[in-house]
Amino acid sequence: MDKIYEIIIIGAGPAGITAGVYAARKKMDLLVLSGDIGGQISWTNDIENYTGYLFITGIDMISKFQEHIKKYNIEIKENETVVDVIKQDDLILIKTKERTYKAKTVIIASGKRPRQLNVTGEKTYKNKGVAYCATCEGPLFSGKDVIVVGGGNSALEAVIQLSKIAGNVYVINNMAEFTGDKILSEAVEKADNVKVYNDSQVLEIKGDKFVSSVECSQSGKNFELKVQGFFVEIGLDPNSEFINDIRKNERNEIIINSLAETSIIGIFAAGDVTNIVDKQIVIAAGEGAKAALGAFRYLVKQGG
Amino acid sequence: MDKIYEIIIIGAGPAGITAGVYAARKKMDLLVLSGDIGGQISWTNDIENYTGYLFITGIDMISKFQEHIKKYNIEIKENETVVDVIKQDDLILIKTKERTYKAKTVIIASGKRPRQLNVTGEKTYKNKGVAYCATCEGPLFSGKDVIVVGGGNSALEAVIQLSKIAGNVYVINNMAEFTGDKILSEAVEKADNVKVYNDSQVLEIKGDKFVSSVECSQSGKNFELKVQGFFVEIGLDPNSEFINDIRKNERNEIIINSLAETSIIGIFAAGDVTNIVDKQIVIAAGEGAKAALGAFRYLVKQGG
Repeated sequence: MDKIYEIIIIGAGPAGITAGVYAARKKMDLLVLSGDIGGQISWTNDIENYTGYLFITGIDMISKFQEHIKKYNIEIKENETVVDVIKQDDLILIKTKERTYKAKTVIIASGKRPRQLNVTGEKTYKNKGVAYCATCEGPLFSGKDVIVVGGGNSALEAVIQLSKIAGNVYVINNMAEFTGDKILSEAVEKADNVKVYNDSQVLEIKGDKFVSSVECSQSGKNFELKVQGFFVEIGLDPNSEFINDIRKNERNEIIINSLAETSIIGIFAAGDVTNIVDKQIVIAAGEGAKAALGAFRYLVKQGG
Repeated sequence: MDKIYEIIIIGAGPAGITAGVYAARKKMDLLVLSGDIGGQISWTNDIENYTGYLFITGIDMISKFQEHIKKYNIEIKENETVVDVIKQDDLILIKTKERTYKAKTVIIASGKRPRQLNVTGEKTYKNKGVAYCATCEGPLFSGKDVIVVGGGNSALEAVIQLSKIAGNVYVINNMAEFTGDKILSEAVEKADNVKVYNDSQVLEIKGDKFVSSVECSQSGKNFELKVQGFFVEIGLDPNSEFINDIRKNERNEIIINSLAETSIIGIFAAGDVTNIVDKQIVIAAGEGAKAALGAFRYLVKQGG
């Protein structure tokens, strides 16, 4: 394993693939390490807000990404679990479970995963009414009744968004009150079509082909809500466990500046694993492009 | 003109249109003011690096944008020349030549325009060999001979990029030496297929359907170069002349932070009119999304 790549990209979601396309177009000697091509896109059913496409399914977008990988002849290794990224002199070592790769620059684009609620029916109805992103999938529930689970800022923002789109919005919050910003919880209280259940839990998601109802409990009393949509908004976890030396914030997101640079020179990061506020495909793609162009400039300056 | 919009977007290039789609999906009451739908995309012939599309022409991408505008029923006013943007109490006034619009938030996405060389043939062969962006259009000149005009950083970066893709790269620099970074000029000097003409000018671009040769002069002596590509890399000017109160940098770009916020609260900016380093469609689109989501959060906090 003595080969030294000019650039290694960790992750093959929108940020990683876009970075890969830009790096390939710069003729950089490139390797992509990936768990799954498409990343979180595989979590979402329909994509309506990626500029250029009026409507595309998650699966179709992944196949577009695969076309790009093929066209630019990008070397990609799947199912390699990265366990550490270490800068050693001018080189960066990427340790996976099986081996160690060497590169001059690295882009970390390993994404995020939504926290699961872990209730019966959640897996069965994923993408069949169960969703994890109100901004992405809210508009698909226009006029329909939905549940939002959570009480923090992302849940409250989801409720405000959905209250303008959906029919009735039920909020299942397991605390006595919301933990999110007051300004947001006030906006939630103002909305006519929102009903809040505090001190409540979800017991089971039921349905046939799609979600049709959800059994909940409040202070020990069970009740059922008839809904078509079920939004889990209890937070996201960045896939950054394998990062030890690079600066992260209190949410374990990699901290980047406006140039997609991390705290270690030569190591860039892009997309949902970073501290960028909005987790959106087109934003991640843009950040991936920034990171690749930044990495290219870094290599030129190194004389590479 | 007493209507107060929730958001007005200035510009309908990739940043403005993406911001518009996000704002429309948030059901914000929205107006887009535009000189030309598509912005700089209309300057570029073929787009290969917008993730998702393997290949799309500038014209096709503009028609995709128009589909979006139609689908989301976005109110758009074309040929309105904005002359000032002023914050007055909690409102923002957008003055055009004919009238004044009012909005709670504004996104400035008015783009950039490449500086023209103003030589004979430049207009005739635009998109027929004459190009203004090596990153965007370089790969279309694989193996072909090209000229790069300029001696600053963007010209040197263009030369380095093109030297890896094109056949011969001729540099026409009107100064005695390069004005760009030494590290870049050294990289240019190292490249085997690059020939530099200092103290030189372009006299005329010639061709038939496409560029075929360029007449130049060096220290009063004329010479002709047979090339298929002609890259003007003498800089870009942001369309920011109408901005008076918002902080700009020495290149007249609007200064934004990583949240797409300008120096005036409630006014956001995105895309090539800002100080973001890389001017790329996918990056501008991502920044447009950031700006719209930031504007939405701002409105929610204002109680709007």
